[in-house]
Amino acid sequence: MVYSISIFVSETQSAMKFGGKIGIVGAGALGAFYGARLYRAGNDVHFLVRTGFELIREHGYEIRSCDGDFTIKPPVYSAPEDLGKCDLILVGLKAFANHFLPEVLGPLATPNTVVVTLQNGLGNEETIAEALVKCGVHRSVAEASKQIIGGTAFLCSNRVAPNVIIHSAHGFVRLAEFQGSPKERTFAVAQLFLDAGISCEVRESLAAIRWEKLVWNIPFNGLGVAAHQADTAVILADPELRTTAVEIMKEVIAAAKVNGVDLDERLVADLIGKTEIMGHYKSSMQIDFEAGRPLEVEAILGEPVRRAQQKGFSAPRMHMLYALVRRMDQLRQSNLENSQSRSS
Amino acid sequence: MVYSISIFVSETQSAMKFGGKIGIVGAGALGAFYGARLYRAGNDVHFLVRTGFELIREHGYEIRSCDGDFTIKPPVYSAPEDLGKCDLILVGLKAFANHFLPEVLGPLATPNTVVVTLQNGLGNEETIAEALVKCGVHRSVAEASKQIIGGTAFLCSNRVAPNVIIHSAHGFVRLAEFQGSPKERTFAVAQLFLDAGISCEVRESLAAIRWEKLVWNIPFNGLGVAAHQADTAVILADPELRTTAVEIMKEVIAAAKVNGVDLDERLVADLIGKTEIMGHYKSSMQIDFEAGRPLEVEAILGEPVRRAQQKGFSAPRMHMLYALVRRMDQLRQSNLENSQSRSS
Repeated sequence: MVYSISIFVSETQSAMKFGGKIGIVGAGALGAFYGARLYRAGNDVHFLVRTGFELIREHGYEIRSCDGDFTIKPPVYSAPEDLGKCDLILVGLKAFANHFLPEVLGPLATPNTVVVTLQNGLGNEETIAEALVKCGVHRSVAEASKQIIGGTAFLCSNRVAPNVIIHSAHGFVRLAEFQGSPKERTFAVAQLFLDAGISCEVRESLAAIRWEKLVWNIPFNGLGVAAHQADTAVILADPELRTTAVEIMKEVIAAAKVNGVDLDERLVADLIGKTEIMGHYKSSMQIDFEAGRPLEVEAILGEPVRRAQQKGFSAPRMHMLYALVRRMDQLRQSNLENSQSRSS
Repeated sequence: MVYSISIFVSETQSAMKFGGKIGIVGAGALGAFYGARLYRAGNDVHFLVRTGFELIREHGYEIRSCDGDFTIKPPVYSAPEDLGKCDLILVGLKAFANHFLPEVLGPLATPNTVVVTLQNGLGNEETIAEALVKCGVHRSVAEASKQIIGGTAFLCSNRVAPNVIIHSAHGFVRLAEFQGSPKERTFAVAQLFLDAGISCEVRESLAAIRWEKLVWNIPFNGLGVAAHQADTAVILADPELRTTAVEIMKEVIAAAKVNGVDLDERLVADLIGKTEIMGHYKSSMQIDFEAGRPLEVEAILGEPVRRAQQKGFSAPRMHMLYALVRRMDQLRQSNLENSQSRSS
């Protein structure tokens, strides 16, 4: 790709190694996959587990991966108090579960813990910083913000059972400090991924990697739900939806620009080309919707729209997509409540 | 309303009276209602009927109306050849059925027949003109165009059985010549409606009344389908959908402007206010969608987008709405085909 500058991790840059305790928060398709790879590479990785705790404790995680299958039996915990303080926390929660963060991070984090979030969308770092204040680790959001690293994960994985992850493609990670430029610790975290066989690069600007990922995520996650079971191939085969996806991409690039992030317009053609190759690929939001789960509607759609509008850019397509997907998410919720009240 | 200039029909203007034979094409919720009112007022009205022919011939039409219930037993026909030549044809077909027009208009129209369409959206007059050429009534579209009057109907009605129409509110009609200024015959047609107790006004510009109606029709028909069973109250109660509807309205006004139609921006607040009062009102497109019928997607959404884009206006929200509703319409069609192939 020609449109962005990466700082690749070299051995000289990563003199610092992370030898400490790693906690995985949100051990789903993303968290469990990366956690398992880090564990297999010999790191001291501990998993906080909400569903399937007994199953995972007994049988461990089974990773069926295009890079080779493997099973691990790492330490797992059902309560954050049992897991205890960590040197590094990897957050893989779905953004709609962020309200759990204060109670989860409280027992895990110290003022020196590095918190890495690989969640989708915008606003997760801010929420984590607020959670670190709420649970008493820091007294100010400004202080808490300094211990957070943000990242984007390019990963095709799916959890098919509480302890079984299917990894079908990719996996590379981009990291950037939430506040300021990359530090020695940023490269050290990247080296952890590299040593686990995961491509990883450190970038200067978190905003840049987040907005760059949104250029794909907004149209294909949003239309995947709003245009009804529309996987990537369906969207690209329909001339009007394809044009819509392209126009949304351009709009996200414009929204990034008003937020100080300059992305190359060639990114659009590049991403469309890559998506063509993916065939009938379902976005995470489409999968969540079909499974009746909540959607990451605020992180992936709502927050980018608000940040564009705050800078005076109306983002018409992004806003309409947000309004429609938000409605779908609320309908699912009210249908759920109706079916619960009928069955009770 | 302050935003438009109407020419109300006065007795002096309507010296010409329509004494001839009137044919109703598309005797649905709209066509049967207006046809029945014209018949009851003493006009020579004949109905072309596709479904429920025997039922309607035997029992006539039952109009359950907020203006008073009534029943009529007018002449009905299942084939246009049986109905024969008319002096006036009132077209109330759904726009998705316009491909039937050449075979239907052929036996009904002469070069002197006045064809009045009260269909939704844009492009119906053009299609009727082409149909009049295809069926041999005229040799050129330009000639055929001269015999067409377009109109917009503000009517809340629903067909609940082939011969039963529920009329719940409104009914007023705006008319304008497809080509050129209002003529004596335009006022004569308006007088027909007035004599039947239907408010009717003649306007200078067909484009103006069509675009003005689209300011309501595009957001509420489009979102009614794209935002899932979203009636007007649902749309207005959801802050993001409400904003979306308002922004779409402004966009339609902008699209009208590039097409030479100046609408007052106050129309937006006026229509939102009127829609507030309507309560849980379902647009015709939402009703069609819920009933599994085809949608008037090209007339109401597609053609306005294309006319905006032809003038260099991208119409982002209108285009996205068109892309999404078009997808829903195609999904319904393919689901229908799947269920037919399964049952055969």
